Amino acid sequence: MSVVYRNIERAPLAIVDGLAECGAATVHEAMGRVGLMRSHMRPVWRGARIAGTAVTVSIPPADNWMIHVAVEQCREGDILVVAPTSLCDAGYFGELLATSLKARGVRGLVIEAGVRDVAELETMGFPVWSRFVSAQGTVKATLGSVNVPIVCAGAAIAPGDVIVADDDGVMVVQKAEAEKALQASRARLDKEQQTRARLAAGELGLDIYKMREALAAKGLTYID
Amino acid sequence: MSVVYRNIERAPLAIVDGLAECGAATVHEAMGRVGLMRSHMRPVWRGARIAGTAVTVSIPPADNWMIHVAVEQCREGDILVVAPTSLCDAGYFGELLATSLKARGVRGLVIEAGVRDVAELETMGFPVWSRFVSAQGTVKATLGSVNVPIVCAGAAIAPGDVIVADDDGVMVVQKAEAEKALQASRARLDKEQQTRARLAAGELGLDIYKMREALAAKGLTYID
Amino acid sequence: MSVVYRNIERAPLAIVDGLAECGAATVHEAMGRVGLMRSHMRPVWRGARIAGTAVTVSIPPADNWMIHVAVEQCREGDILVVAPTSLCDAGYFGELLATSLKARGVRGLVIEAGVRDVAELETMGFPVWSRFVSAQGTVKATLGSVNVPIVCAGAAIAPGDVIVADDDGVMVVQKAEAEKALQASRARLDKEQQTRARLAAGELGLDIYKMREALAAKGLTYID
Amino acid sequence: MSVVYRNIERAPLAIVDGLAECGAATVHEAMGRVGLMRSHMRPVWRGARIAGTAVTVSIPPADNWMIHVAVEQCREGDILVVAPTSLCDAGYFGELLATSLKARGVRGLVIEAGVRDVAELETMGFPVWSRFVSAQGTVKATLGSVNVPIVCAGAAIAPGDVIVADDDGVMVVQKAEAEKALQASRARLDKEQQTRARLAAGELGLDIYKMREALAAKGLTYID
Amino acid sequence: MSVVYRNIERAPLAIVDGLAECGAATVHEAMGRVGLMRSHMRPVWRGARIAGTAVTVSIPPADNWMIHVAVEQCREGDILVVAPTSLCDAGYFGELLATSLKARGVRGLVIEAGVRDVAELETMGFPVWSRFVSAQGTVKATLGSVNVPIVCAGAAIAPGDVIVADDDGVMVVQKAEAEKALQASRARLDKEQQTRARLAAGELGLDIYKMREALAAKGLTYID
Amino acid sequence: MSVVYRNIERAPLAIVDGLAECGAATVHEAMGRVGLMRSHMRPVWRGARIAGTAVTVSIPPADNWMIHVAVEQCREGDILVVAPTSLCDAGYFGELLATSLKARGVRGLVIEAGVRDVAELETMGFPVWSRFVSAQGTVKATLGSVNVPIVCAGAAIAPGDVIVADDDGVMVVQKAEAEKALQASRARLDKEQQTRARLAAGELGLDIYKMREALAAKGLTYID
Repeated sequence: MSVVYRNIERAPLAIVDGLAECGAATVHEAMGRVGLMRSHMRPVWRGARIAGTAVTVSIPPADNWMIHVAVEQCREGDILVVAPTSLCDAGYFGELLATSLKARGVRGLVIEAGVRDVAELETMGFPVWSRFVSAQGTVKATLGSVNVPIVCAGAAIAPGDVIVADDDGVMVVQKAEAEKALQASRARLDKEQQTRARLAAGELGLDIYKMREALAAKGLTYID
Repeated sequence: MSVVYRNIERAPLAIVDGLAECGAATVHEAMGRVGLMRSHMRPVWRGARIAGTAVTVSIPPADNWMIHVAVEQCREGDILVVAPTSLCDAGYFGELLATSLKARGVRGLVIEAGVRDVAELETMGFPVWSRFVSAQGTVKATLGSVNVPIVCAGAAIAPGDVIVADDDGVMVVQKAEAEKALQASRARLDKEQQTRARLAAGELGLDIYKMREALAAKGLTYID
Repeated sequence: MSVVYRNIERAPLAIVDGLAECGAATVHEAMGRVGLMRSHMRPVWRGARIAGTAVTVSIPPADNWMIHVAVEQCREGDILVVAPTSLCDAGYFGELLATSLKARGVRGLVIEAGVRDVAELETMGFPVWSRFVSAQGTVKATLGSVNVPIVCAGAAIAPGDVIVADDDGVMVVQKAEAEKALQASRARLDKEQQTRARLAAGELGLDIYKMREALAAKGLTYID
Repeated sequence: MSVVYRNIERAPLAIVDGLAECGAATVHEAMGRVGLMRSHMRPVWRGARIAGTAVTVSIPPADNWMIHVAVEQCREGDILVVAPTSLCDAGYFGELLATSLKARGVRGLVIEAGVRDVAELETMGFPVWSRFVSAQGTVKATLGSVNVPIVCAGAAIAPGDVIVADDDGVMVVQKAEAEKALQASRARLDKEQQTRARLAAGELGLDIYKMREALAAKGLTYID
Repeated sequence: MSVVYRNIERAPLAIVDGLAECGAATVHEAMGRVGLMRSHMRPVWRGARIAGTAVTVSIPPADNWMIHVAVEQCREGDILVVAPTSLCDAGYFGELLATSLKARGVRGLVIEAGVRDVAELETMGFPVWSRFVSAQGTVKATLGSVNVPIVCAGAAIAPGDVIVADDDGVMVVQKAEAEKALQASRARLDKEQQTRARLAAGELGLDIYKMREALAAKGLTYID
Repeated sequence: MSVVYRNIERAPLAIVDGLAECGAATVHEAMGRVGLMRSHMRPVWRGARIAGTAVTVSIPPADNWMIHVAVEQCREGDILVVAPTSLCDAGYFGELLATSLKARGVRGLVIEAGVRDVAELETMGFPVWSRFVSAQGTVKATLGSVNVPIVCAGAAIAPGDVIVADDDGVMVVQKAEAEKALQASRARLDKEQQTRARLAAGELGLDIYKMREALAAKGLTYID
């Protein structure tokens, strides 16, 4: 059955915005290294770092009808997350749909398929992470669902979860864990700030992290 | 038998130039979604949008001798299209060959293999779409053919056909259909211009394209 | 057994610096087309052209402990070369490790795995060639070895060998051949300089390289 | 945190056994075409058709310690389902672990990584679906979790869900839907049985499924 | 426009049957090494060696409606050749469609996409070459065309051309060249028969093919 | 320079034959998990388990001339190991070359490229491990080298090293370590034999390998 859930609970934008500043890698580490999408998900242009609340779409291969349906469910602060039901590199999304999403305050698109108009998307400043870039058109013939739990690029996502995306990839934080994620991420950033200064001054990670003893215990041998 | 056809019929440059302005995705849609090369064909640098008439090369793996032969057959407005007879990532082409092509007014290269000197190609402003980037050298030992029909990256191409290429990929238009393609592409652009304004103003594609009835007829269910 | 060789013989930096100016493709050709890493090794940001002496690391999948060990073995002019013992796309390396390497005068990283913080790496100007980009974290649990002979991305590398890397890929020159490589590369560049001018003036490679006779002997047929 | 859930609710074996008879493709269709793992999951030997209840394992790359932990949680009728936290082709599993699982009545293994001893696995008649085959060994250094919800090869799986696997691939049925899946699958098989006889007798799908009118309405044109 | 050409000219079956005996590799060599599909096209079961006349289908991704249309256009001696318009691994074809094709005397299927029911296809003895195996279902919503020229797995195919397929892959012979292909293939087989006997007796290819002089002329050096 | 080394030191066949009995995975573990080729190296037919001494070939893409040269350097007990200088899926090798190798007592072929005549190779019982299967023909135009150190599928190989290959993949043992490898492999097999019996009797690896304490120390938590 094809369904559209209209009312979803979203993580609070104040927390979401905090996570955007932390970036995908830091949030991923802070959450115990879970929730990352596969490394084949790449930004179509470089330099964006965003976070938003997921509006999810389960969609047939090479058919973008449900993206049009999903646009109506999006609001300020959302990121649209689209997962085809089988492998597909067709170009589901271009600058017209981006124009529509931007008009609604949507922050970006994450899709495990293809997109097109990538030059225009960069000019518009609309960030997109995808598996493929392709001009290949899609049809509007078969339904899917909006705001159901999906798997996109190896990560499980529920509607309203937080998406954090930058040049390193795309990370998912369950909405119930968003606040904890922000605290842990900020703590990590603080700690890294101190470590960075020491490393820049020439101190070694071996000493800062006190690794020498453990390495020796494992049997690491130095030969001159 | 290895042959070089010297006299080929080319699509008229006036039409070709019009297609360049439309871009690969628009022309692809306007032609009924046929003629696109596989999505693994990527620009080696971003930002070019060109069209030209195809000079085709069927070439052995890792042997670029026939590219030298093909250069002589190229003229103002052409794009060189090179298809190896089996999978190959070697770097067939670099800045010296680009210098030679540029001197003849050739607009770019499309090759389902590797190229090198990509930094220099960008500096020169010579656009290239390829499957791979590789410094790997090639030999000059085995013949191929120039200006025969080829298949490159999944698309059938006859000499003189129009190639439209940009950051979204590479599109082929048969020369007999070039004029029709231009008219249909321009009509599409005009229509999109109007749609874009409405979408930017917040109107939904669901309403502009009148999709709601068809979605309901298919059984799409909204749940609050 | 996990070992760290502390004293390795390195190719002289004067020669290394000369090779950097020649670039990967030229050095590859000058050395008879051997020593190139696979074409899946790509720069995480575009525009760097470097050479350095290899400090090698054989490392377990998704475990970056030995990179910390290797940092201590690096000095001015080195490039860190890291090869996991099986396929891995995890993000072994980010801006903290880059900060540490930069503080020691290391010129870049080559790794047949994933890296993260790619935006920061570009801002820092620290060049990295990798197979993947991924925010995925790694553990520190299992040993490997430093400054042993390794295979990275299809190329055999001994500690102290010269790495030449740019937007075309990554090339390895054995340290015993570094001087010969530099001479041959410079000779090639000189020759190319002359060829480039002739090609730019419209002369054909067919004539410059005197290919017409050999092509005819092979049976190449021209059809008008 | 690394946890092992000892008590999981499993789908009833009577239903599971019924689903095994239906096969992955039929169950997939009967469930509305959801729940299938990616097509890169292939049987290491051909000819098995099984179903079982999932014991799930989230595991680090190239570290099989948690498989040993998971064995203890398995019982008659289970299938072990293993998902590494990042891309890995190492050989996590061989005939010793298969011997152990077989002794406990486990029906097979599904792993989005590598396995080894494939000849022995076939001789033992222990079915395995994997993404890779590799002799590469793994370590025992880092924890993961057992019987938590996982994503394996693009499909979300909860402990106790039904896995149906055969030469066509691997299908997941949520335990709450197992009975419905069995009924729908059997109904589909009954219907197909009738269709098969008509097709074998030379009747066309076009007529059996009454497609001609819809095709004509879409504009399909026949040319003699 | 979606069209079905009902009357196509086919290569004569007597020649087609002769080509089946020669096999894909021999015919490929005899035709000057052109016409081979990409190496990702693999038999779903091993041991078939067939040839037939192509009924071609251009089909949308994950939509098998046009295969039903194409069945009606097939007759004794045909092979169905199916090319999706973009990358797709869905399972377009299974044992019901195979039953229908078999009832019409069709010899096999070649598809650059997925198929399912592979165990049943082997039991039925219906040969299939595909890029993927997948249980993933397809829809019946969008038209394509039957008996138009297509590109499948990198090879251009016109309706009625000869397909030769075995465990080595899939080869296409234009119908106008079928007779020439058969003669050249048989001549090659005769010659190979003699060479095989000499090689089995211990004679070297270096001597049989008289390669030593050419190798020496190229500069091959032997070192004791 | 293209060279053929005629006299190479080979590992003793008595040891080689012992390693064949151990299999690739066991030898790989016994050697500390180094020396394995990439998992894309697969047997073209299943069921062979062999070992032999390497005759190595560095070869251009899609050019099999040097295989003919290498045949003459092979003798009883050898395995031919062929590495193209860049990515290539062409079919370098078929049943004629296998006939020639078999006549010389060669035990098999390992090639990181394509082979053809795979049905005939299975009938002949000549084992081959390759990356691709393809009917695509190759030329004889460019030299390479025989019995030089090469990298094949990620593994460094010197002439005379031991190759151990079976359905799990291809393993390389340096000839200087062959005897040690055999002893360590046999010790491992003995130990596994005991473990296998205990596992078959229902004992757990957790207990046999005494893992419980270490797992608890790492923090593994059981939840009922």
